[in-house]
Amino acid sequence: MVYPYGENKEALQRRLRRIEGQVRGIQRMVEEDKYCVDILDQISAVRAALDKVGLHLMRDHIKGCVAEAVSTDQHDAKVEELVDVVGKFLKT
Amino acid sequence: MVYPYGENKEALQRRLRRIEGQVRGIQRMVEEDKYCVDILDQISAVRAALDKVGLHLMRDHIKGCVAEAVSTDQHDAKVEELVDVVGKFLKT
Amino acid sequence: MVYPYGENKEALQRRLRRIEGQVRGIQRMVEEDKYCVDILDQISAVRAALDKVGLHLMRDHIKGCVAEAVSTDQHDAKVEELVDVVGKFLKT
Amino acid sequence: MVYPYGENKEALQRRLRRIEGQVRGIQRMVEEDKYCVDILDQISAVRAALDKVGLHLMRDHIKGCVAEAVSTDQHDAKVEELVDVVGKFLKT
Repeated sequence: MVYPYGENKEALQRRLRRIEGQVRGIQRMVEEDKYCVDILDQISAVRAALDKVGLHLMRDHIKGCVAEAVSTDQHDAKVEELVDVVGKFLKT
Repeated sequence: MVYPYGENKEALQRRLRRIEGQVRGIQRMVEEDKYCVDILDQISAVRAALDKVGLHLMRDHIKGCVAEAVSTDQHDAKVEELVDVVGKFLKT
Repeated sequence: MVYPYGENKEALQRRLRRIEGQVRGIQRMVEEDKYCVDILDQISAVRAALDKVGLHLMRDHIKGCVAEAVSTDQHDAKVEELVDVVGKFLKT
Repeated sequence: MVYPYGENKEALQRRLRRIEGQVRGIQRMVEEDKYCVDILDQISAVRAALDKVGLHLMRDHIKGCVAEAVSTDQHDAKVEELVDVVGKFLKT
């Protein structure tokens, strides 16, 4: 089975590689004893980038998996799963 | 100057390397067409790990830089800077 | 038209009235010069309660409005709208 | 003892009363069966307003209570308390 992020896979991987690079950049800042506030700024930038990736993926997931399940007996389970995942992002 | 995370530098780097590994793990999941909800779970786990690192760093920063500035004319600026950084985490 | 939170309306209103009461409680704490950290704790409690209400409402919305639109030409618009709303909660 | 939000008490109470009014507005929207997405938008607006109030209060708290404690043996405890409160906002 191909998941719905399939067609955006390249864009998704690019974003994730950029985030990986940002995390390595933070390690370098720590290594070079950069000012803590600048490091904290970078950390919140990575967090925001992760939220964006998460939101993209959620959109694909809703359009794909959740929509596909809508007329099946899986629908309620899919909705619960989606709400759970949003809840994890909101740490609720 | 040595910043106050100095003595926790090793622990901080370890956490950051683990986060880097998690981000690479997410890339692998995308590569292998894993289920989107599982990927989203991993993304929110990385986000939570970043918050923890941020909070550690904030503690060191307050104990170090902010406390040191308290009796100087830099204090207000340091407090504003700290509040700004918390605001960025809250995206406020 | 009756929106899908219809059947949970009473529960939803109860939660909202409790939140209103919490906000009034915070005003009282400020009035009585309570300790700022205790007030901040209350504020983050209200925030968490709002997230819970939001998540409940989202579940009803997905099960109702989004699911209903799934086989119509409104579906994409509904999904975008839902993703937007999640994005606002994540402040993304 | 007068807490450091003392001088901003009026502004703080005004903001809290506005938030209380917003929460009542949401109850009215539910009462009148407004569209769930519009209600969700309002909920995230209240959440953002609470974050702003929290940040204001934090600033006063750091300038006041934390700064005052800096040269006392209470300082570490105050810093931990502050970090705890930020952590609650980040739900960390």
